Order: sequence, then C-alpha cells, then structure tokens
Amino acid sequence: MMLKTHHCGTLSKANVGETVILNGWVQRRRDLGGVLFIDLRDRSGIVQIVFNPDFSGDALAVADRARNEYVLAVKGQVVLRDPETVNANLATGEIEVRITEIEIMNAAKTPPFFIEDDVEVDETIRLKYRYLDLRRPEMQRTLMLRSKAAKVFRDYLDSNGFIDIETPILTKSTPEGAREYMVPSRVHPGEFFSLPQSPQIYKQLLMVSGLERYYQIARCFRDEDLRADRQPEFTQVDIETSFLSRDQLLDMLEELVVKLMKETAGVDIPRPFQRITYADAMGKYGSDKPDLRFGLELVDVSDLVANSGVKVFAQVVAGGGEVKAINAKNCAHWSRKELDDLTPFAARYGGKGLAYIVVKDGEWKGPIVKFFSEEEIAALRERLGAEEGDVLLFSADKKKVVADVLGNLRLKIGKELGLINESEFKYAWVVDFPLLGWDEESKRWVAEHHPFTRPMDEDLALLDTNPGAVRAQAYDLVLNGYEVGGGSMRIFKREVQEKMFAALGMSTEEAYEKFGFLLDAFEYGTPPHGGFAFGFDRLVMLITGRTNLRETIAFPKTASATDLLMNAPSEVDPKELEQLSIRVALKAPAAK
Amino acid sequence: MMLKTHHCGTLSKANVGETVILNGWVQRRRDLGGVLFIDLRDRSGIVQIVFNPDFSGDALAVADRARNEYVLAVKGQVVLRDPETVNANLATGEIEVRITEIEIMNAAKTPPFFIEDDVEVDETIRLKYRYLDLRRPEMQRTLMLRSKAAKVFRDYLDSNGFIDIETPILTKSTPEGAREYMVPSRVHPGEFFSLPQSPQIYKQLLMVSGLERYYQIARCFRDEDLRADRQPEFTQVDIETSFLSRDQLLDMLEELVVKLMKETAGVDIPRPFQRITYADAMGKYGSDKPDLRFGLELVDVSDLVANSGVKVFAQVVAGGGEVKAINAKNCAHWSRKELDDLTPFAARYGGKGLAYIVVKDGEWKGPIVKFFSEEEIAALRERLGAEEGDVLLFSADKKKVVADVLGNLRLKIGKELGLINESEFKYAWVVDFPLLGWDEESKRWVAEHHPFTRPMDEDLALLDTNPGAVRAQAYDLVLNGYEVGGGSMRIFKREVQEKMFAALGMSTEEAYEKFGFLLDAFEYGTPPHGGFAFGFDRLVMLITGRTNLRETIAFPKTASATDLLMNAPSEVDPKELEQLSIRVALKAPAAK
Repeated sequence: MMLKTHHCGTLSKANVGETVILNGWVQRRRDLGGVLFIDLRDRSGIVQIVFNPDFSGDALAVADRARNEYVLAVKGQVVLRDPETVNANLATGEIEVRITEIEIMNAAKTPPFFIEDDVEVDETIRLKYRYLDLRRPEMQRTLMLRSKAAKVFRDYLDSNGFIDIETPILTKSTPEGAREYMVPSRVHPGEFFSLPQSPQIYKQLLMVSGLERYYQIARCFRDEDLRADRQPEFTQVDIETSFLSRDQLLDMLEELVVKLMKETAGVDIPRPFQRITYADAMGKYGSDKPDLRFGLELVDVSDLVANSGVKVFAQVVAGGGEVKAINAKNCAHWSRKELDDLTPFAARYGGKGLAYIVVKDGEWKGPIVKFFSEEEIAALRERLGAEEGDVLLFSADKKKVVADVLGNLRLKIGKELGLINESEFKYAWVVDFPLLGWDEESKRWVAEHHPFTRPMDEDLALLDTNPGAVRAQAYDLVLNGYEVGGGSMRIFKREVQEKMFAALGMSTEEAYEKFGFLLDAFEYGTPPHGGFAFGFDRLVMLITGRTNLRETIAFPKTASATDLLMNAPSEVDPKELEQLSIRVALKAPAAK
Repeated sequence: MMLKTHHCGTLSKANVGETVILNGWVQRRRDLGGVLFIDLRDRSGIVQIVFNPDFSGDALAVADRARNEYVLAVKGQVVLRDPETVNANLATGEIEVRITEIEIMNAAKTPPFFIEDDVEVDETIRLKYRYLDLRRPEMQRTLMLRSKAAKVFRDYLDSNGFIDIETPILTKSTPEGAREYMVPSRVHPGEFFSLPQSPQIYKQLLMVSGLERYYQIARCFRDEDLRADRQPEFTQVDIETSFLSRDQLLDMLEELVVKLMKETAGVDIPRPFQRITYADAMGKYGSDKPDLRFGLELVDVSDLVANSGVKVFAQVVAGGGEVKAINAKNCAHWSRKELDDLTPFAARYGGKGLAYIVVKDGEWKGPIVKFFSEEEIAALRERLGAEEGDVLLFSADKKKVVADVLGNLRLKIGKELGLINESEFKYAWVVDFPLLGWDEESKRWVAEHHPFTRPMDEDLALLDTNPGAVRAQAYDLVLNGYEVGGGSMRIFKREVQEKMFAALGMSTEEAYEKFGFLLDAFEYGTPPHGGFAFGFDRLVMLITGRTNLRETIAFPKTASATDLLMNAPSEVDPKELEQLSIRVALKAPAAK
C-alpha cells in the first residue's frame, strides 16, 4: 500500500521537483486523446494529476479504469503547469503531478449525487448517504470549524481555571420532565433512567462540592416534536462558577465570545456588548432575542391615541392594552394588496388587524386618518418621525400580542428593505428577565428560566405579594435575532429555594420528593454560584452562515427525529424487550 | 457580597502586607482564649485566618458562630506567622491572614463525615453525599487530573490534524446488542433507539466521508451486571484515521501516551514500548494483558514430561494439552498449608490441581518427584533454572486453563514476593490477536475484537480452511496488567467484510439486515483505515494510583448500576410510560 507523503490541496510551486505520494478520491477525469487528467481530492483540497504514455507506463492503463470517487494511491513528480493551463480558481492550480505509479485502493459505484458544494439534491437523500454528503467541501469545512470552535472554548476555559467534568447521561427522571427520554434498566426491572435535558443539577452540585469552576461540552436530550432548529440530541457548552458576580461572569463570557469569533470567523467583535433589559427588548423590538443589526423600533403611542376617534385604539388602551407603531421608511410605494396582506400576517401572531397610514404627496392617507384630530396627527408625526414616503403601521392589543405582531413585522420589513447587514455579528445581553410567568392553562406561576434561578435581592419580598413583578438574575446572549446562550445566578440558600418552590405552587413535600437531594445539599455549605450554557449547534450554525442546524452536525436526525442513515429508531425483538421487563403498548388509533 | 481576590492555598510570603478577600469553607476552628483560628479551605488549599479582638472588631463575634463547612467571605491582611507557629506541613504555613471583615455566605449542618483525605466512611455514604465527598482534596485532585488528561489528549490530537466530531448517542439498536440500553421514542410509538457501546460504525463512516482523522472523547454505555472495574456509562478517547499503516498509528499513539504521562504524572516513559504478540503474551504470562513489571514467566515443559511417570502430565500432553511451570524463587520456606492452598486457588481458574516441587536442602521434594527419571529432573532443572530454595509449580491442562491458572498464580506470587515496583508504569503493545474465537455455547466462531477488524493479508486464505489460525490486525495497549486501550485496522472492502460475516456464520441477508448501511458505504470508495480507543476512566485510575473506577468519576454508579445521590433508576408514573407507548412487564418470580 502506498501511503501519502503529502495532502492534495497543499501542493504548490514550492513542491516542484519533489516526488510525492498522494491518497485521495477521483473528483473528475478527462481523457484528452490518450492523456488522462484526474482531479484528486482529499480533505485538504484538489490537485490535478496527469497520466501520459511518455512517463506513466502501466499506470495509465490502471488509471483509465478509475471512475469518480475511486480511492487512489499515486506516486509522481510535482511539475509546473504550462502557463496557459494554470487554473487560478484552484489553490494548487499552478502545478500538476506527473504520475509514475498508481494503486486503486478501492473502487466506487456512481454516487447518488455529485460531490460538490451547492449540490441540487433532496436533503433526505443527503441524510441517507450522509457518508457521501460529508465528502462535500462545505460540510467538511463546517465540521472542521465546529471542532475548532470547541477547541477555542476549551482553551479559554482551561486557561481560566475551569475544570472539564463529565456528568452522567443516565440520570434520574424528574417528575415534570414530560419531554425526557426514558431508559429502562435491565438490572433493575421496572425502573428507569432518564437522559438529561441539561446537566443543571449536577453542575450546581459541583459548586456545592467546592470545585468552583466547571465546564463541559455536554450532550443534552429532548424528546418532542421538532421544529426546524431543534434536534432530539443537542450540544451545549455548559459553564458554572462560584464566587463570581453576574458582571464578572458576563465579562468573562464576552472575552470568550470575542476570542471565538476571531479564531473561527476571523471577525473582530467590539466590546462591551450592548446590554438591554428584557423590558426594553420587548418594548422596542417585540422580542427577547432582538436582531439589533437594524433599527425600525416599536414606538408606544398609547398615550397619543387613547382619546382619539379610532375607537379600537381608545378601547384597547382603556382596557389595559397598548397601541404601538413602526415607521416603515420610504415604503409609500407599497400597493394596496401589499398593505392588505399585512392583516393576515398579523393574524398569524394573534393580531386582530394592522392599521396603516401612508404619508404620500404631502398627505396622510388610510382608513383611520379621518378619525384623528390635527393635534393627534402632529403628535404622531413627531414621535414616529414620519416624513414624506413613510408608512406607519399600528397594532393595538394586549402587550404580548402587540409585541409578537410588530416584532415579527419588524423582522419581515427589515429583511425586505435590506436593512440587515448579513455579514455582521451583533451580540447583545438581554438581562433582568422576569422570574415567573403566568401559565393560563394550568392557572399557576411557572419559572421563566428554571426553578433554580435567583431572584433579584431587592425583588425578593415581592415573591409573596406580586410574583409577576419579580425580576430574575437571568441573562441571555443573543446574536442576530437568535438566542445563542442563557444563564443565571442560582439560588444557594434553602429558604429562598423553598420560597421559590412555594411560588411555583409546590408543597414542601412535593418539592422535597422532586429535589430533595438538592435541598439537602443546600444545607451543607453551598457557595453563591451561577452559570451559563451556550447552544453550541446554533452558534456554529450562525458562525458558518447556515440556516439549518442539521448542516452543523455530522449525523443529525430529521425534523421527525429519525436517523435516515441507520434507520433509527426501529422496532425491537419482543424478546429483547422482555429482558428489559417492558412491553410495547400502542394506543388504539382514535376513532374518526 | 465580598468576592475573592485570592485563592486560599496560593498565599505565601510574597503576599505579606497585602489586603486580600478570601472565600472558602471552614476546615476547622480553634478558640485559644478569645483568639479564634480558622483553617479556611478552597480548591486551591488551606490557609489559616485569625480573629483577634485587637484587629477584628465585630468580625470576631460573627466568626464565632461559624462551624465546620460554613462558607465564609473574609477580608484581612496577610502577615508572617511567629516563627514558632510556622506549619511546615502546609503550603501556606508561613503566613496567616488577620481578618477585619467577615460575611457568612452560607451556614452548614455538621456533615456526615469529615472533609479530609483517607476518610473512614462507607462508600455508600460517600456516594449518597457525593457533593461533600468531592470536597475532599484527593477527589478534587483526581478530577483536576482527569480534566488535565483530557486536555493533553485533545491538544495532541488537535495539533496532529484530528477533527473532534460528535457522533449520536441516540442510535440504532444492533440485533446482537444484548447489553444495549434501549430508548423508546415518544414520537415514533413502538420504536426504539439504543445507546452506543462505542461510536465504532460512525467513526468508520467518517473515514468513508474522507474526513481522514477523527477523535472524540465519547460516552459509551453497557447495560450489564457490573464488575468492580466497570460502569454502565464510561468514557473512551476514540480515534480513527485513514491512510496510515498500523505502525504509523502505534508510533503516534506512543508519542501521545508519553506526553500524557509526562504532563499528568510527571513520569518519563521510555520509547518504543515493548511489542509482544498475543501468542507470546499468553505463552509467557498466561494473559493478553500481562503485567510486565516483573518476570516469573511461564515455562512450557510439555516435551520434558510427555513420557514421564507422572501419568496426568503424560495424558494431558498426549491429549493435546500442555504442561507448564513457574519457578517461585526462594519460596522453599512455604508451609505445607501454603502449598496445599494453591489447589483451591487453581480451581478458581478451572485447574484440577497444582503440582509442586520444593528444592530444599539439596533435594527435590514433593509428591510427584518420585515419578521423574534423573534425566527428566536434570532437564527440568535446566529449563526452569531451579536452584536451592525454589518452588516449582506445575499446571497440566488445556492451554487456556493452564494460562488462566498459572497467569493468575504468577500475579499472586509476584505481589506476595514484592516483585512489583508499584511506582512503575510499564506500557506494552500486544499485537497479532487471533481474528476469531470458537464459542462453545453457540458452537460458532465469534469475532475476538469486532467484526470489522481486518485479518492479516497473508492469513486471509485461511478464513475458509482454518478460521482459528487467522490473525487479526488488532492491537491492545496494556499497562501494569490492565488493558488501557485497543484497536485495529479495519476491513475496508465489501468482499472481505462479507467473507468475515460468512465466517461468523451470518448469511448475506442477515449481514445486510444488520449492517447494510456499512456494506453500502463500502461500495462508494472507502479508504484503508484503522483506529483505537483508550479506556479513559481506567487510564485515569492507573495514573492516579487508584484501584476503583468510581474514584475517577464525578458522579459514578455503584456496582449494581445505581446512582445513590439521585436515587436512579427509579419507578416512573405509568401515565408517562403510556406517553412512550410502553408498559412495565415484570417477570413472575421463578418458582423455588
């Protein structure tokens, strides 16, 4: 077996005259009247190799049998190409290799799709033949960048005193873990492990252990119907530390992100990152993960329209809702149809309608204009900065609906008007999240982050009187409209943790049954601590400019949680299930 | 909150005069007539802090409430100790900190055991209170070394072009995976994922993908009754490469191990590592993972005793078995009872007996001596190097039994006679394993390594005629009598893989059903490849001089696969199982 001395893509003029052995795949072949040219590919790139009766001898006949994706071992001399055949599109385009020896290491059938970037093929085919899909240079670049990103994370954390600690994947099922994967134990019939949605409890226990700084690039699991940007198993860069303030931790994380972006994307991110409160993010952008690459902010006009003749506006404000607007600059050319189409768009986010005013030919036009007084129009003009050519878009509803409608409209218009610099990476911290949210369905308060999040010290007393007003010491890192990480300072005193459980409607017994080991641990000297987790898949996706998490994972599952390559999940021999002391119990199909 | 400016264990004379803030746990406190001394501990070590009415003011009264394991924040000045109170046993023993401010960050109940090395407490208590157990310095040192070891692995592999790629944990159940954890899918009722015993198939597919060099510190799973040195989830450093020869790979791995030992244990390991064939290892040491820190080799004397008057020896040799001996030097002082106790020891490993000859007072003594001729005794003396004071121990049986009996006896005697240098790390490669082994139970050949291991090219033809004689391109790394890793060159041609499946008694259909995706992949241009996996937990165990894998894992499971901290596995609400379309089906207890 002839084994490589060089990588295909690294050969250059500097190698001219050298005899090299290359191993690689046939990218394409051209037979020019008895002279055979093959583009040979390995993960480093492509180089042209030449077989010619003048110098290749028997190798030419062997090479002639090679087809696309054959694996070759070849030996030959690096030579300069004739000037007229130099290929400026190829890193190795100035040279070629004259082959004197060849070995076909392995043959290949014609692959179901061509191995190149931007291949036109259905994703299901790519996933079924993932081992071929991963030959495509863009997939290899993405996986190499992912590996590099992991290294940047590790190097930074290692050098800042964080200890890489593995936590269990076979762990205890938590009673509210409705979306946990369960794992029957063969050794303990009738009992189950579960797969963790995050190492949350373990990393807090490591802080109780005094290990002080922990990290892990951890696999996590969620068994649910999937959205385009979810996977049943996903990876987070999980971090926890003791004896640091929130700001010390955020500073450190910023430094880490700056390093990451520099070393993977070659981009300089300015510091400090913008910090925006949850209230401001929702108010100005209608989102807790605002895309800050452009303005087009939401403007509250409730006070200006509360007494106007637009009845629905007045009613909404009187009922405790709000009226907000965005100013779509220079959009007065929109057709009536374009304007009317905004109503179904608003409906998608729960909005009952979307009022508009077009500022055109020096006039304010639109169905609601006539209900405003001149003073109201003047006030709106000033607050919204309305000028000739603008379109003003109004949503009037409950706060949450207004945020959803205008937040999404803002993104849509921003994209359509080309307000977004697609090459920019705009990081920001969203801070001061509410601790609790009211769940309409179960009629109780639920933790917005998770039940171990520390309330703001100054809001603690509100837990009894006005739970919805309590702010949490929680923070998210957002990038270009995505949440790429989140964390919080944790509760570290048993009495506060019990108060939190009570606010969530859990009895002491229930809390103890669920989290007894943690409450116990809190009694043995728990330090103040907090942490963070980066969504690693999503971060890699954004750094590489992809829009699909599956492109960043070597062997992903489909949106229906299926592995098309291995055909998993799959049915199992009932005898094997017997060994596990379980049985399949399919529900009868619902009557129609 | 006063947050630390320094770590307890790092303060020294260099800090004298500085005002520092420390955060840590009360290791112990002594009240010397109104002056309070506290040993404050964090993960870096311990420092003495002092409260004195002269400089501590109100802090003294607060400190007086602190008990063991309270978490304190203190501020004070570093001063030299009086010469007579210097503690040479403590890294910080020359200084102490005079405290002026204190804050009790958290209180602590009296822990169930004292936080110190060599604590005398049952392991079940330690596991239940793992968060306290992990406060003990030796546990923290071990976890830090483990983190360091992972870093050395990664740094070496990263800098040698290996790509860190995550492979799925939710994967396809393989039909013979009798010891696999199964995971019911909520989204696909009646179907199951399984947890991987290793990323074997995926890493081979990555080679088919042309990614060329892969590694992953991978979690693996095995659902079986456990032995002391097994865990249901364990970690391996998993490696695969294309276009490298076996020797190139082993050289690289040696270089990696040398680096690892230098950077974690501070030990220089000489290269190259000894290479010993499987046949030699079994022949000389009765083990495929020989402890090479001492000699006491097994010596074949079959030819010398084949015609002797010792009937059982003659019969065994005639029947195709063998007779081997080891020479226990200077053991002639053993009592009759000690000698007789060797028979039950042999029986534990399947031996029917253990013959001995004691060389004492110039005579050969023992029940079998009288059946040997003088020539036979002379020949045995020469081959075994028997001298005054020696004991010769004989086992006669099938090869495997002799190896087991004498191999284990060798270890026992080596230990008892103090032949082993406990501080030595003796690495070696065991190579040329047999490809197949005969399974008496199922009456068929089974893969000794796994079914993807490449046979020696020159033995390939034997697959049809004499499968047991085919050697594999497989290799193990052994250290002090433990296997710490193993690997092989892989089959990369479909026809060889099919031949292998046939040798294992699998029909083409069966093979295709089980490994179709791999056989398919082999047809699209698979490069020659091979790989290795280090048993990470065991390696850390040996480097840190532990004898129990649980000491190297932050949150291990017991020998009965239970997590005592979280109480997992546990029973699950039947409603949740219904969501998963499964039901518990316990077997009726067997009749007695």
